[in-house]
Amino acid sequence: MMPVRRRICVVGGLSAGPSAAAKAARVDPSAEVILFEQDDAISYGICELPYYIGGEVQKDDLVVLTPEQMQREKNVTVRTRTRIQNISPSRKTIEVHDLSKGETREERYDRLIIATGSSVRPLGLAGEDARNVFHVKSLDDGLQIARFIEVEHPTRAVIIGGGYVGVEMAEALRRRRMEVTLLHKGMVPLDHVAPETSDAVARRLGDHGVTFLPQTQIVAFRVDSRAAVAEVLTPDRTLPVDLVILATGVRPNTQLAAAARVRLGANGGITTDSRLQTSVDNIFAAGDCCEVRNLVSNRMMYAPLATNAARMGWVAGENAAGGRSTFQGALRSIALRVFELEVVHLGLTAAEARVAGLAPEVVTIKSTSRVPMMPGGKALCVTLVADRSTRRLLGVDVSGEEGAVLRGNLLAPALHHRLTIDDVRRWDLAYAPSFSPLWDPILVAANAMARKLEQR
Amino acid sequence: MMPVRRRICVVGGLSAGPSAAAKAARVDPSAEVILFEQDDAISYGICELPYYIGGEVQKDDLVVLTPEQMQREKNVTVRTRTRIQNISPSRKTIEVHDLSKGETREERYDRLIIATGSSVRPLGLAGEDARNVFHVKSLDDGLQIARFIEVEHPTRAVIIGGGYVGVEMAEALRRRRMEVTLLHKGMVPLDHVAPETSDAVARRLGDHGVTFLPQTQIVAFRVDSRAAVAEVLTPDRTLPVDLVILATGVRPNTQLAAAARVRLGANGGITTDSRLQTSVDNIFAAGDCCEVRNLVSNRMMYAPLATNAARMGWVAGENAAGGRSTFQGALRSIALRVFELEVVHLGLTAAEARVAGLAPEVVTIKSTSRVPMMPGGKALCVTLVADRSTRRLLGVDVSGEEGAVLRGNLLAPALHHRLTIDDVRRWDLAYAPSFSPLWDPILVAANAMARKLEQR
Repeated sequence: MMPVRRRICVVGGLSAGPSAAAKAARVDPSAEVILFEQDDAISYGICELPYYIGGEVQKDDLVVLTPEQMQREKNVTVRTRTRIQNISPSRKTIEVHDLSKGETREERYDRLIIATGSSVRPLGLAGEDARNVFHVKSLDDGLQIARFIEVEHPTRAVIIGGGYVGVEMAEALRRRRMEVTLLHKGMVPLDHVAPETSDAVARRLGDHGVTFLPQTQIVAFRVDSRAAVAEVLTPDRTLPVDLVILATGVRPNTQLAAAARVRLGANGGITTDSRLQTSVDNIFAAGDCCEVRNLVSNRMMYAPLATNAARMGWVAGENAAGGRSTFQGALRSIALRVFELEVVHLGLTAAEARVAGLAPEVVTIKSTSRVPMMPGGKALCVTLVADRSTRRLLGVDVSGEEGAVLRGNLLAPALHHRLTIDDVRRWDLAYAPSFSPLWDPILVAANAMARKLEQR
Repeated sequence: MMPVRRRICVVGGLSAGPSAAAKAARVDPSAEVILFEQDDAISYGICELPYYIGGEVQKDDLVVLTPEQMQREKNVTVRTRTRIQNISPSRKTIEVHDLSKGETREERYDRLIIATGSSVRPLGLAGEDARNVFHVKSLDDGLQIARFIEVEHPTRAVIIGGGYVGVEMAEALRRRRMEVTLLHKGMVPLDHVAPETSDAVARRLGDHGVTFLPQTQIVAFRVDSRAAVAEVLTPDRTLPVDLVILATGVRPNTQLAAAARVRLGANGGITTDSRLQTSVDNIFAAGDCCEVRNLVSNRMMYAPLATNAARMGWVAGENAAGGRSTFQGALRSIALRVFELEVVHLGLTAAEARVAGLAPEVVTIKSTSRVPMMPGGKALCVTLVADRSTRRLLGVDVSGEEGAVLRGNLLAPALHHRLTIDDVRRWDLAYAPSFSPLWDPILVAANAMARKLEQR
């Protein structure tokens, strides 16, 4: 008698899905692992799309694993152009719609992993589906933008949304020699980072000829006779345009989950336990469709990041295959290159700390990436947020042209393990003149915070 | 009545001394703080000497604080060309010898900080004081070497000792277009680092034309009629030479302390408590003249590093001025640039872990500094050492041409706070394509270690 093979179905092929499928197949090599994806491509570098559009990355490099490689190297069956339309948890079946053949049939699962990702939040304005309006949310989006630029030679671009995708696209389109206007609802670009970081990014964008319009909402698109947006209208301006990028943030794709009565959280994403099981038996979830716990505030948040997706995919895949692994949450760690500037944020901003009921103290210091006498060093700006009563580190931002991101990451352990500013001050970091001042900027900032806390 | 001013005397002006003096004056602004130094210069970039000799750093930049600046900006009286010849702990006096005037007199102290540093271990061979044989241990050494190169145009250099000073000097002299031979007692350069790091350094030296002679002891110097070493003799070679650098490691300067019955440790350095008080009342010690606790093995070690000196100086200065600060020990964190290669080590090597009674497991992985598709990324090699039974991280080495040192530092918190490999695996590090692969090499290495520990 053949042993019954466990059938693990994974819905969504971008990041968390492939990660989960590959891990499940590794943990239980006897399982039948199937990855469903409605598009053609799976497992590609979504974070690299702006670099592809800007001409730094080659098209052929974008795909990390083809469906064939996934099958051959990871022992996962991949079914692209296949949409899952419904889940029946009681019968443990899914309704599988083959987009190529137009057929729908029911298939069983033993374990299901929902990794349906996120979509761009629409503006709800006429014209946002015009032929020169693009998202940056799929490989196909990236290819379309690149093709549009090559064929139509747009010279004026408007980007709507000053989050990190908007900022990265501003740089990409400047590299393609366009006039770029970046519209943002807030005063400064980027959310969830220290004001010092936002200011540095705004300055850097300006230095490179990007027109940043703060507190600007779009009122309407004027579509021309060629079904393209010709003008973007704001309350006080009319911006002639050849290319529009919508980077207004994303929301979790939860329709499939919600219809199966999988519980959603206050932030709109699927909620899970630390094993990434949803409220419904045998259904796991991972990636952008989920909420995650902020490990600093201990509150749920929506943080759709590739790192979280990959990590959650591993855990969901392992557990769906019978393993025992946990995902406790994330720090909302964000890194970004803006022209030559590196910026990084981990943990809470002072504003977020206040909302979480903490008593944040903030300190910002300027330092350098090398001993000042060494040639090639760059300025670095470090902002720390700590809790006044417990002296616990709550957040960090670093910006600069050398070693900023890796220095921000240096404080990830402090945030994970709830270390105090006094713990950080004692760290024995390796030093050589080419790599840091004798006192690393992170230590300088920690010392400055300790002094500030003592003065109170 | 005038309040009695506390008189804090600091012996030694290079690194720990100025750090201690400045801190003491800040903590107790009413104190009389005096820094004694037998040479002319204080507070200069000793770590930067090879870069000065190699032509990367300017002479005028080497001095961090002049005696005048120390006085004006830090409220410390500096007495250069002054040697402390004796300490009388019972009378709380020191015998102060003014080298300019040739006078000796007794002065009182309330608190004394010994920061007498270290000296190069002599070979005990005739000719090692010849006019073309140099140490790299003081500003004067650096100036003399640079002057010798400019005046005498040496073309063949022999460096004795393949520690980090020897390796840095090999690069510096190659930059000055000399033929460089590096003699080392061991098989590979550098002590206290992983074999993978030593190998990478050896290869890099070879790639840049440095002749590395392993397991080579020097037998004799042949001195010519101009009082210069003309040949270096090893058991099987005669090396014609114009310039000799002695980089055979250093030993603590403890004569002054020992004569005052300050307790020394098994490694030859002064031992202190965590407040950096010596065994003798009112006498503190800091820097290269001291032993420090290795925070990973919990054993005493001799680790003469600028970072330890600066940190210990702060603590000794604060406590001598009546404050309460502690120095628990160090990780032996070492960073080095070898031509374009960055190398870093923190914690214990596998060999050191075994000596400390631990059960080390080692894992080495290759990764990249950026997402492979991003241009400009470099190869990275990470070696981790962890304890098999507790899964605690014990040491890390990273080498590569981009982001190696800062990545090694990422694990300093793990070593300080005795985290396990499982703790490290969960870290939510910020990611962007320009700064790391989606899984940072440190996480890749931690995952590889976890797998290896499970297989046992």
